[in-house]
Amino acid sequence: MNLILICIGKTEQKEIDSLINIYKNRLIHYCDFSMIEIPKLKNKKTSIIEQKNKEGELIEKHLKNDDLIVLLDEKGKKYSSKEFSFFLNKILISGSKRIVFVVGGPYGFSKHILLKYKNQISLSEMTFPHQLIRLFFIEQLYRGFTILKNHPYHN
Amino acid sequence: MNLILICIGKTEQKEIDSLINIYKNRLIHYCDFSMIEIPKLKNKKTSIIEQKNKEGELIEKHLKNDDLIVLLDEKGKKYSSKEFSFFLNKILISGSKRIVFVVGGPYGFSKHILLKYKNQISLSEMTFPHQLIRLFFIEQLYRGFTILKNHPYHN
Repeated sequence: MNLILICIGKTEQKEIDSLINIYKNRLIHYCDFSMIEIPKLKNKKTSIIEQKNKEGELIEKHLKNDDLIVLLDEKGKKYSSKEFSFFLNKILISGSKRIVFVVGGPYGFSKHILLKYKNQISLSEMTFPHQLIRLFFIEQLYRGFTILKNHPYHN
Repeated sequence: MNLILICIGKTEQKEIDSLINIYKNRLIHYCDFSMIEIPKLKNKKTSIIEQKNKEGELIEKHLKNDDLIVLLDEKGKKYSSKEFSFFLNKILISGSKRIVFVVGGPYGFSKHILLKYKNQISLSEMTFPHQLIRLFFIEQLYRGFTILKNHPYHN
């Protein structure tokens, strides 16, 4: 089974990239994890709505019909780490070949995307930079597996 | 007015340290911010309760009677970023010379500390490494000021 994290834009700060790699290397023990960084839009004159729509189209190009898709959105369901591990278990045993988590761009997702993909989770009530969200998420994903497997957490 | 963040242990990963410094440098424009990193306990044989009690004693050595103290604890009140900026405003106009935010050690706070300091906030339902919490918090502090001042957020 493949777990995929789709994000908009390259991880700009090398420090975030390096921290993400620490968790990526730990995740190897639990799943086949990969990240897809969709290049961010270059035309800076587009409106926020247009930007979100275009980002949505680019995201959908990477999705397959039978993917299990989970959006990371501020308005999504909030879980404790333990509850998230149960959610993770539920999707792991769903039979889907690919589980795709998606972090939106700087302004979040388009209406189309939000209406189409109903699995939506939120890491916090608070708004964080979309670049940091990928770090928070990958840490929780790793934590989720350690909870499920009852392994000590490498802090 | 001084805003202080007390944490247990040095920031171990240089990447986290470097990201924290980015936000520290931005905070200069809004407040006098500093961090106190209390050296972590060396005796590895202490129980979790003893460790939390000792960490509590070390934290209290850095506190003054008229400090306004806010604990960052999982069970604390959860705010959206906007609500947190209102909370920030409330404590900024409280008249306290020092506002002290405290992140506990790897196991959180002792009972004594939790019972004594009633201002408790939480950044997420989820559990994050205490080393990452300091990064998340400082980002939210910066974001809180930009919301209060109606400044664009430097993402």
